[in-house]
Amino acid sequence: MSEVEINLGSRSYRIMIGSSLLDRAGELIAGLPVGRQVLLVTNTTVGPLYAGRVAASLEGAGLTVTVAEVPDGEQYKSLASTELLYERAFSAGLDRRSAVVALGGGVVGDLAGFVAATYMRGVPFVQLPTTLLAQVDSSVGGKVAVNHPRGKNIIGAFYQPSLVIADTDTLSTLNNRELRSGLAEVIKYGIIGDEQFFTWLEQNLPQVLALKPEALAYVIEQSCSNKARVVEEDETEQGARALLNLGHTAGHAIEALAGFGRYTHGEAVAMGTAVATQLGVQLGRLTLAAADRITGLLRRAGLPTTVPAELAGADLVAAMHGDKKTVGGAITFILPVKIGQAVIHPNTAEEHISRAIVAART
Amino acid sequence: MSEVEINLGSRSYRIMIGSSLLDRAGELIAGLPVGRQVLLVTNTTVGPLYAGRVAASLEGAGLTVTVAEVPDGEQYKSLASTELLYERAFSAGLDRRSAVVALGGGVVGDLAGFVAATYMRGVPFVQLPTTLLAQVDSSVGGKVAVNHPRGKNIIGAFYQPSLVIADTDTLSTLNNRELRSGLAEVIKYGIIGDEQFFTWLEQNLPQVLALKPEALAYVIEQSCSNKARVVEEDETEQGARALLNLGHTAGHAIEALAGFGRYTHGEAVAMGTAVATQLGVQLGRLTLAAADRITGLLRRAGLPTTVPAELAGADLVAAMHGDKKTVGGAITFILPVKIGQAVIHPNTAEEHISRAIVAART
Ligand SMILES: NC(=O)c1ccc[n+]([C@@H]2O[C@H](COP(=O)([O-])OP(=O)(O)OC[C@H]3O[C@@H](n4cnc5c(N)ncnc54)[C@H](O)[C@@H]3O)[C@@H](O)[C@H]2O)c1
Ligand SMILES: NC(=O)c1ccc[n+]([C@@H]2O[C@H](COP(=O)([O-])OP(=O)(O)OC[C@H]3O[C@@H](n4cnc5c(N)ncnc54)[C@H](O)[C@@H]3O)[C@@H](O)[C@H]2O)c1
Ligand SMILES: [Zn+2]
Ligand SMILES: [Zn+2]
Repeated sequence: MSEVEINLGSRSYRIMIGSSLLDRAGELIAGLPVGRQVLLVTNTTVGPLYAGRVAASLEGAGLTVTVAEVPDGEQYKSLASTELLYERAFSAGLDRRSAVVALGGGVVGDLAGFVAATYMRGVPFVQLPTTLLAQVDSSVGGKVAVNHPRGKNIIGAFYQPSLVIADTDTLSTLNNRELRSGLAEVIKYGIIGDEQFFTWLEQNLPQVLALKPEALAYVIEQSCSNKARVVEEDETEQGARALLNLGHTAGHAIEALAGFGRYTHGEAVAMGTAVATQLGVQLGRLTLAAADRITGLLRRAGLPTTVPAELAGADLVAAMHGDKKTVGGAITFILPVKIGQAVIHPNTAEEHISRAIVAART
Repeated sequence: MSEVEINLGSRSYRIMIGSSLLDRAGELIAGLPVGRQVLLVTNTTVGPLYAGRVAASLEGAGLTVTVAEVPDGEQYKSLASTELLYERAFSAGLDRRSAVVALGGGVVGDLAGFVAATYMRGVPFVQLPTTLLAQVDSSVGGKVAVNHPRGKNIIGAFYQPSLVIADTDTLSTLNNRELRSGLAEVIKYGIIGDEQFFTWLEQNLPQVLALKPEALAYVIEQSCSNKARVVEEDETEQGARALLNLGHTAGHAIEALAGFGRYTHGEAVAMGTAVATQLGVQLGRLTLAAADRITGLLRRAGLPTTVPAELAGADLVAAMHGDKKTVGGAITFILPVKIGQAVIHPNTAEEHISRAIVAART
């Protein structure tokens, strides 16, 4: 088992990474300063696979568990689900010290996290991420949110978990497309801040795709360490944390325009990263060779790096204006400037964005 | 004009107290690091009185203002109002840097604050409190919340404002009952931590009730300083902040049982303080003389200090078990132990509580 520390003063916490950790959830959570009542939030896909084991582990540690299963799908990361979970929490008698535990991918984690952040002004929150994306990204850093008809993740908070337990075994039941999607964020960490990790990924991708436990644990650990460094520097996204949005400015626009559900988040981010990469080249900030390494690695991970023709450039740019990362109307891009380094590029001209999209068509 | 600083590291802020401050809101808010768009949240009573002046001041400082008026009443401090305000915020084009400004009493402040805390994971928040209760209590300290059918303030967050502007002139339109209600919290600060202030109140109550500007400003400044000290020590209510709940354990039970709206918050807190005071006497922790000073001052402020017979002791105790401050089933009381000092008393025996209620009947 390996461990990554997120140092945020009184809001510090550990990420435990390894095999068979779900069975140790009870012991680990009971070791936190929490009450006896636990609300275990999961969904209708992950619940049948793992909730029984987790509940048994929690109960074995003397905790009282109420399982709340939400339907599977991004559309259930909603204020309506939030209200249902508040109701479940009350019915189960949760008080201010009771923990909310999220068992699932990023959808369950974001939703349960928002409930934990707002129920009685915040109760202890534990993440048991079961997708690669959740293990390397969404469960770490304290962003929690639900969607709103007006946009994704529009209602939310910064609320750190008390503990994250990433059991690599759970990835064995994840479908291949979801696994590859998580790799978009993994590769992102290499691009924005860790050349060595990027190179390691170029060399060891097959082991990762084959779910070799040591390779997975290494990927998760390196990703979490990288994210931890950025989050520690800028917990509430006032500055440096924006680097984590590499691929997300265009990615969110692609998700919105294609209709949520058409692409996975990781696929959209991969295409968005391709756009940002082309922008870097166009602005003379990134070499073609580096750009090829970026798109090459994404492609070998089975991720799309071309923006399909049905998503018109003008529509994508318009969608970027609606993105909440847009402050004061200007479009901010994260630009890779070499493997292992990216910069925040505010006020990106629409003309340059349009040309980068064209360059990312093929 | 006087100022009180709340020192919470990167979440520090100032409280400005004085006359004619509403007209300076624009200048003061434009001086914060905020965007141009502002959502001004108020209600149908306060809006017609003051929103025009505030909007003019904001516009004069170059800000673009959207006024959102919610109906007057505690029942509108709800998730439903939250959703309406999210919608207004979107329609007005608010982004992550746009400020939400609350103009009104504690209801508007708590509601607008919860919207500010959760819209786009948190936007700048400014309080323009217009009731005495809001000026001395609810606008300071970062507790924001909405009600839920299951209980008051059950959904919320700890979210500090960027600035609080308390214009004492606004109290001239407040009805007398609301003014007196605010005094319950003012007197509370004296009891739990400031004997000198308590004594000042005993001597100067008539000037306060007559709305003498200097007396009001002094009351607000001393109250905010007292609250600031407690909040600085314990921002998220893990320990010492609980002292601010003097009168609230029984007070909340009284509010719930009598039906919300029957008593003002301050009236319920005054009765709750009487119960806590009787408990202190019974447990041999408070002298009868000090108890008399407490109930005497509350009474002179026009506040009720006897629990009416129609609220049965057993029902009140049961309601206390449902209160969210109850951790793990035990009832925690804040006990005054002398004028200027209170202690946290966990696991209060129901028998003692019942007897304190009986003692507070007359
Ligand atoms: N909070 C953050 O910082 C952050 C960062 C990135 C993404 N996100 C959010 O994360 C969400 C996407 O997360 P995701 O990619 O994990 O999607 P997801 O949670 O929808 O999971 C993908 C699919 O895999 C299923 N699944 C999960 N674990 C499984 C397992 N072990 N075996 C079999 N099936 C399993 C799920 O039921 C779902 O059908 C989005 O809502 C996005 O906004 C949040
Ligand atoms: N956040 C906190 O720390 C905290 C602390 C204490 C109380 N509260 C909350 O505060 C709320 C009570 O606040 P409140 O007592 O200010 O009640 P309120 O906001 O309902 O105001 C009382 C009444 O006075 C009216 N009003 C307000 N300002 C006025 C003015 N200047 N002139 C004329 N009328 C005016 C209001 O419209 C309302 O009818 C409760 O919801 C309570 O839970 C919060
Ligand atoms: Zn992402
Ligand atoms: Zn109060």
